[in-house]
Amino acid sequence: MAIDFTLLKTCRQTGARLGRLTTPHGVIDTPVFMPVGTQATVKTLTPAHLEEIEAQIILSNTYHLYLRPGHDLIRRAGGLHNFMHWDKPILTDSGGFQVFSLNDLRKIREEGVEFRSHIDGSLHFLSPEKAIEVQNALGADIIMAFDECAPYPAERRYVEDSLARTIRWAERCKKAHRDTERQALFGIIQGGMFNDLRARSVEATVEIGFPGYSLGGLSVGEPKPLMYEVLESTAPLLPKDKPRYLMGVGSPDCLVEGALRGIDMFDCVLPTRIARNGTALTSFGKVVVRNASCAEDFSPIEPGCDCYACRNFSRAYIRHLIKADEILGLTLISIHNLRYLVRLMRDLRLAIAEDRSGDFARAALAKLQAGE
Amino acid sequence: MAIDFTLLKTCRQTGARLGRLTTPHGVIDTPVFMPVGTQATVKTLTPAHLEEIEAQIILSNTYHLYLRPGHDLIRRAGGLHNFMHWDKPILTDSGGFQVFSLNDLRKIREEGVEFRSHIDGSLHFLSPEKAIEVQNALGADIIMAFDECAPYPAERRYVEDSLARTIRWAERCKKAHRDTERQALFGIIQGGMFNDLRARSVEATVEIGFPGYSLGGLSVGEPKPLMYEVLESTAPLLPKDKPRYLMGVGSPDCLVEGALRGIDMFDCVLPTRIARNGTALTSFGKVVVRNASCAEDFSPIEPGCDCYACRNFSRAYIRHLIKADEILGLTLISIHNLRYLVRLMRDLRLAIAEDRSGDFARAALAKLQAGE
Repeated sequence: MAIDFTLLKTCRQTGARLGRLTTPHGVIDTPVFMPVGTQATVKTLTPAHLEEIEAQIILSNTYHLYLRPGHDLIRRAGGLHNFMHWDKPILTDSGGFQVFSLNDLRKIREEGVEFRSHIDGSLHFLSPEKAIEVQNALGADIIMAFDECAPYPAERRYVEDSLARTIRWAERCKKAHRDTERQALFGIIQGGMFNDLRARSVEATVEIGFPGYSLGGLSVGEPKPLMYEVLESTAPLLPKDKPRYLMGVGSPDCLVEGALRGIDMFDCVLPTRIARNGTALTSFGKVVVRNASCAEDFSPIEPGCDCYACRNFSRAYIRHLIKADEILGLTLISIHNLRYLVRLMRDLRLAIAEDRSGDFARAALAKLQAGE
Repeated sequence: MAIDFTLLKTCRQTGARLGRLTTPHGVIDTPVFMPVGTQATVKTLTPAHLEEIEAQIILSNTYHLYLRPGHDLIRRAGGLHNFMHWDKPILTDSGGFQVFSLNDLRKIREEGVEFRSHIDGSLHFLSPEKAIEVQNALGADIIMAFDECAPYPAERRYVEDSLARTIRWAERCKKAHRDTERQALFGIIQGGMFNDLRARSVEATVEIGFPGYSLGGLSVGEPKPLMYEVLESTAPLLPKDKPRYLMGVGSPDCLVEGALRGIDMFDCVLPTRIARNGTALTSFGKVVVRNASCAEDFSPIEPGCDCYACRNFSRAYIRHLIKADEILGLTLISIHNLRYLVRLMRDLRLAIAEDRSGDFARAALAKLQAGE
């Protein structure tokens, strides 16, 4: 098997799990936050920055890389690790989420999805087999089954049909993925906000059998309490000895709440996306560095933070860079935002190890809320 | 005195000089190329990148910093070194070049220049005294007198009047600059393409007396051979024991040709500006990484280069980044371009030390030309 997951312990205060995930490119301590490098780069950062931040694993997007520069080019470059010079673990999604998001530009059939490129309008076809072929060429340590992420809100009937197809596609993905020693294929749990459909999804997907399970179709517009409820009803149904990945989540509070409910892996574009709007994430809530209030503020983004931005630069300087359209401003906030989430997960892991994740979460969430 | 210049030797083959310039923030080996950080940042790079590149000194622009974020803010931040977290030497220009470039937006008087901001159209006034006041607040190791850079081509009569005013302004700058222990004020030689006016400028400016001399009004559109001719007639008139800075130059061939004619310091936006167009500078000429010819080229920008970009990334990857509008592409080419010029100057210094700068220049220029 490409990966090995050890559940080191479950916190006595909550359902939070401490784990160790071994992959061909290194060991990951969980719960973990994965920075997103959509187009084979985490926006505005070098791989050296990511190492300094202590990112353990990054995510990249199959849809984008399939269209540009093409998976075949990346295969010939020696795979994604070599192409982008990142020799720690990588996870790729299946492209499903992106092609389903194209709405008017795609047609769903049992065989797969026909879609037009958002770049040049050219016609393409992605199926379970094709998504696996592309991900095999990219060579990430962890890859995803090709699924449909149902929108929110959605009719039960739609979600039922979509889920049934996702299960059939999961079987085809498993069959298409042969080199299980090099890459671990995760199954994806869907079922919208319907707890019985989620249960059906878990049963069928676990029956097919995967080395890890992703929770898809969450953080798609529903209220946070609803997402937490789905996690509470679904996560306990999953095998304890396999890693659980909550796709596309998220904000600091959602990472903490998700971990308390037994999630091991998270990813989100939020920290790098809001950095490009001049907004920083801190343990006391968001700081809009772009705002005039930071113009003469010579303190760091987050006092006490050990990141390169906070050790060396003031809010006043970073605000100047943003107002002057200088890219270094985005780089510095991105470094901080990612380092903050890495630190948050590290502190959370320590709290789980010491059976105090409930106390930790209460304090962290209160501090976040007080600052907003 | 803020700076100390030691002329270590002059090459026996050419007029190239090997020097050592000691400043309050460190020692600079000359000839030296200075990367430009217009708005208190070398575009797309962190100061850590600049250190890795082994940049010895960087340049920043008074006009831009005066307008945004304002020199008073930077003074309160502890000066430009502290504000931008660069504790090696810095040189600032006087703002003259930029305000004179505003054309319709400025009015020249004996007292100074009234101009409108290119950012918001607000009215400002820059004089010799004001330019020194602003540069005192910024706190660079080396600062420039407020001068007029005559355009090319220009009538002799215009250049004569302009030069006379530049000389009067140089006197006022020297008088206004009091803290000569902390910052060295350079005089600027003008006189357009008229060798006798250049000689008059040298005589008058040296008479006023400065710890270093800049050559302004070159590389403003004239043919390169004409610039070289002006350098040949002007440089020998300058005091041997003072550093000579050729402003706004330049391309790899101009750096070599300038050094052969006795220039010690250079700056130019070229390496970072063309990086943003996807073009790399190499010892065998320009490489347009953006071009389709690089799409499947898995070699580095410049084989053998020791920069972070060339050690770790292929042309194919960097081209992908540029085509996908990913900032890392600009960062990597900027790192390479600056490192290439730093290496070029280091190799040139070694050649001067070994009395073979003529041979070195011939070989380097032939290789550059063959590749173009």
